[in-house]
Amino acid sequence: MKYQYSSIIGDVVFDNQFHVVEQGHNLFKKYPNLQEPDEHHKVKIQMAMRDKKFFAAFVKDNIAQTKQDVKRSVIPDNHIVHAVNLLEELDTLINTIVKRLREWYELWNPEFSKSIQSHEKFCELIAIKKNEDLLKEINIDRKHSMGAEISPKDQDAILQLARRCRDLYTLRSSTQSYAESLLQENYPNLCTVAGSAIAGKLLGHAGTGRRLVMMPASTIQLLGAEKALFRHMRNKRSPPPKYGLLFQHPFVQSARKSEQGKHARALADKLSMAVKIDYFKGVYCGDRLKKELEEKFNK
Amino acid sequence: MKYQYSSIIGDVVFDNQFHVVEQGHNLFKKYPNLQEPDEHHKVKIQMAMRDKKFFAAFVKDNIAQTKQDVKRSVIPDNHIVHAVNLLEELDTLINTIVKRLREWYELWNPEFSKSIQSHEKFCELIAIKKNEDLLKEINIDRKHSMGAEISPKDQDAILQLARRCRDLYTLRSSTQSYAESLLQENYPNLCTVAGSAIAGKLLGHAGTGRRLVMMPASTIQLLGAEKALFRHMRNKRSPPPKYGLLFQHPFVQSARKSEQGKHARALADKLSMAVKIDYFKGVYCGDRLKKELEEKFNK
Repeated sequence: MKYQYSSIIGDVVFDNQFHVVEQGHNLFKKYPNLQEPDEHHKVKIQMAMRDKKFFAAFVKDNIAQTKQDVKRSVIPDNHIVHAVNLLEELDTLINTIVKRLREWYELWNPEFSKSIQSHEKFCELIAIKKNEDLLKEINIDRKHSMGAEISPKDQDAILQLARRCRDLYTLRSSTQSYAESLLQENYPNLCTVAGSAIAGKLLGHAGTGRRLVMMPASTIQLLGAEKALFRHMRNKRSPPPKYGLLFQHPFVQSARKSEQGKHARALADKLSMAVKIDYFKGVYCGDRLKKELEEKFNK
Repeated sequence: MKYQYSSIIGDVVFDNQFHVVEQGHNLFKKYPNLQEPDEHHKVKIQMAMRDKKFFAAFVKDNIAQTKQDVKRSVIPDNHIVHAVNLLEELDTLINTIVKRLREWYELWNPEFSKSIQSHEKFCELIAIKKNEDLLKEINIDRKHSMGAEISPKDQDAILQLARRCRDLYTLRSSTQSYAESLLQENYPNLCTVAGSAIAGKLLGHAGTGRRLVMMPASTIQLLGAEKALFRHMRNKRSPPPKYGLLFQHPFVQSARKSEQGKHARALADKLSMAVKIDYFKGVYCGDRLKKELEEKFNK
């Protein structure tokens, strides 16, 4: 294929067959001798673009080109954000249906349900063990239990729900470790300074790493406190928020109440540096950033 | 054991050992010769109740008695209401996480996701089949797909979510058939007139069958329209609601707009009869009720 007429208009490259080959900047790598079209060629290209007989091919090639762009546009950030948002959704979902499960199960065996605090353990135990064994474990005789005698059909319906709850807990933990491993891989500095849970939430809030990088530290400080911020902006009597998501960070949590705003500001500052280093593939220096942050307030 | 001093005070039965034996009305069945205490016995019982040394035993027996009452208080209605409410919750949950699944999966294979409308079928197919096979089914070459190449780890996270969604759909359908079978068993007339979906919702709204029986037909007509009703009561300018849950019934749906209120009123009337017949274990006459209802508006 000859490229003597090749030229670049925006990102789209034509040769004299009016054929889209590849994105412009990639083409330069492939054909280092490629030059900008001179006046003569530019006129030729413009004439070609006016000719309706090329339109169908142009549209077709443009669509193919766009499809490739879409294909290439998927980055790890997309997966991280989906996983992190899924986690939040799962928490709500699991809470709703575990509450239902508890209430329902307590018709049958209230003593066992009361004896166990953790929802997750509760689901697992009732999903695998028999009711009699569970009662034995808490030393209660079936005769003295307040639980009703319910038919096997009812028992089955309850246990099926319990098994699904257990599965959802499994899904939650596997999604969490998946999200954490992705974060560690792509945002090691951010993870070290923020902790993977908060790092995930920050990314989820910003949408992509790119957007998070673009944000000034003061925006990062208030991510998740949008409601309070806009309330303050509408009505100056409500105080401005000091922190959003960062409030959950142990560094802010452990500070005295009057110092928490200051701590959040310093933390947001370091986070903003960390995410920039990660995004532009800098060297790992998360530990140093974290240490600096701690030292600043320890003297 | 002798019962010469046995007597009944309210529901609690004492013999001369001041011992709670059983609920009064059950005791009469067991001991048909049991009589109301005469004046002499009543005084004796009152004296006994003043004596503090019996208090501990009285409290203990009372608790045991109450536990038995709690045990016996579980009725099929409880299961129906739990199952029906669970169904509604599951619908919300499934919608949330299927939406997430679709969005996430579309990074990988957008063409297949677009080709299939039903969420349930979508989850099932991607959970069991390989991605390449799915693409083949809709005649798309992997090379021309807009889907990105994603790592096995990402694929695994997505597919795990898909499998959980599929399980939730299974849970939904099994809970639905469980609720329907319970309803058919306990409220056959109500089910015939209202359809099992609406019958379940009415019960779920009322809490128990007993409460639904206590309601006048006009309350049944407006179940589920509480918000509109109270808005009307606060502010007479907003119109009174004509129907709540009953709006979903085909009998109301098929009526002309101007007749829907009338239809809902007639339907609520019949439902109120049907649920009373069911609750007091009357004979089955659901078909007759339904026929009467239809004939009323067909002439």
